Amino acid sequence: MIALHPRGVFCAALTPVTEALAPDHALFVAHCRRLLAEGCDGVALLGTTGEANSFSSDERRGLLEAVVAAGIAPDRLLPGTGVPALTETVALTRHALSLGVTTVVMLPPFYYKGVTEDGLFAAYAEVVERVADPRLRIVLYHIPQMSAVPIPFPVIARLRATYPGIFTGIKDSAGDLAHMEELVATFPGLAVLAGADPLMLPLLKAGGAGCITATSNLVAGDLAFVFRHHADAALTAEVEAAQARIVAARDRASRFAQIASLKLLLADRTGQPGWHRLRPPLLPLNQAEADALRAA
Amino acid sequence: MIALHPRGVFCAALTPVTEALAPDHALFVAHCRRLLAEGCDGVALLGTTGEANSFSSDERRGLLEAVVAAGIAPDRLLPGTGVPALTETVALTRHALSLGVTTVVMLPPFYYKGVTEDGLFAAYAEVVERVADPRLRIVLYHIPQMSAVPIPFPVIARLRATYPGIFTGIKDSAGDLAHMEELVATFPGLAVLAGADPLMLPLLKAGGAGCITATSNLVAGDLAFVFRHHADAALTAEVEAAQARIVAARDRASRFAQIASLKLLLADRTGQPGWHRLRPPLLPLNQAEADALRAA
Repeated sequence: MIALHPRGVFCAALTPVTEALAPDHALFVAHCRRLLAEGCDGVALLGTTGEANSFSSDERRGLLEAVVAAGIAPDRLLPGTGVPALTETVALTRHALSLGVTTVVMLPPFYYKGVTEDGLFAAYAEVVERVADPRLRIVLYHIPQMSAVPIPFPVIARLRATYPGIFTGIKDSAGDLAHMEELVATFPGLAVLAGADPLMLPLLKAGGAGCITATSNLVAGDLAFVFRHHADAALTAEVEAAQARIVAARDRASRFAQIASLKLLLADRTGQPGWHRLRPPLLPLNQAEADALRAA
Repeated sequence: MIALHPRGVFCAALTPVTEALAPDHALFVAHCRRLLAEGCDGVALLGTTGEANSFSSDERRGLLEAVVAAGIAPDRLLPGTGVPALTETVALTRHALSLGVTTVVMLPPFYYKGVTEDGLFAAYAEVVERVADPRLRIVLYHIPQMSAVPIPFPVIARLRATYPGIFTGIKDSAGDLAHMEELVATFPGLAVLAGADPLMLPLLKAGGAGCITATSNLVAGDLAFVFRHHADAALTAEVEAAQARIVAARDRASRFAQIASLKLLLADRTGQPGWHRLRPPLLPLNQAEADALRAA
């Protein structure tokens, strides 16, 4: 049996920004350290929750460099490197590899909609061919409600057959447990990671590899506990209690805009007002929403 | 009465690529020259038809520089500069201005879906504030079937009220004449440009400003004729004949994937095989499609 890779609890880390809306490296590094200290196996930075696509390629590179320079082990980082432009995806992926980061989370090119399966395969294949680095490990990123470009099963099958050992995982953020279970059943050896916190537990029971999630910015410890002890009969009550807290946190953060809600709650918890800011087109919660969220 | 800007027939130019899938500057410049010679008022390069989002920012800058360096007047160019990252949109827009190009076509940031009107306004407003150049003229780009981020009327109204003289136009590629007519009626002085070739004529009759279209890569002369003579009673038959050819060309190019079809037809017409290539996730037509298109 091949070990699943990646496997564990990965936080889709929020990205703090300065008053000028530039990435706040120091605050971000501190956040990554806290997430690892709370039990995350790694940090999936520069994803949807991290507002990656609102940052330029230079800003993305700068954030990743800051985290590596701060001494966080590259093998605990899963940066997002998939953007619409082929050459930019290649450049971001090569840059990650140059820092010793070998596993990346890759959106499909998401501008054109209704692309063919051949076209989607070609887009990923061209990246692999151009990066041309045997260390590369790719986690496909299926989030059709945001990318509007789903990753169909035949494309996954063809990529895995054509590039053995490269396409080792998939982050499934569509929010449908049945789809995740079907991925597990269809692709033995593929690490299926839940994109929604409450679904990690049922996915683990079905053979999944863990999660890359947003609410873990707040409840990393509970997710890590569930991941480690979900099969331990002696801890059933504790696992259930942790899972209940995860579900409650996720429900709370989903009442209003999710990223803004998570940032508000993190600002309150850490006392760092910098967490309040988002880069347009996303905005902080308005006062009424913030009051309602805090009262919840 | 304020003159509409931009006004006329603008070709959403296709972008030829080399065997390595890099932009082919020489072939592109020749294409732009031909479009202007055929009667286009300008070239709307680096849009959806031009596969702009499949190119890196550096590649986009290189293409625009090549066209300007070739001596094509900057005031006849309408490059696309809107991408998901705020800072990248700002950089591309500033770059265009640095070359003397003052009017750009700007997609909304298109990664996040379901953004609020406040968020969309903030995204455009932040670009204007950061570019901080009174020469700037922005054509909003409404293409919800591709961007999945429509531009609502209240956002247009607020941008025009907040930044008078900046948001002078909108390219409406949704394909719904009633929506274009409503834009004309709601926003006096706003240049409404049809994104579909057959709709330019009825839009002109309703007070529209012209078009930015894909089929004009093939039928620029007919579009220019319709634009100039649509109100000339002595030329009704000729205008109708040109319009019929436009509709036929558009229908032909829409039978299979549009951009690939246009490139095939342009390759056949110019004898330049370089036009056959597309950058993934788009692909050339397969042989059966190509045969059927040529037979049509």
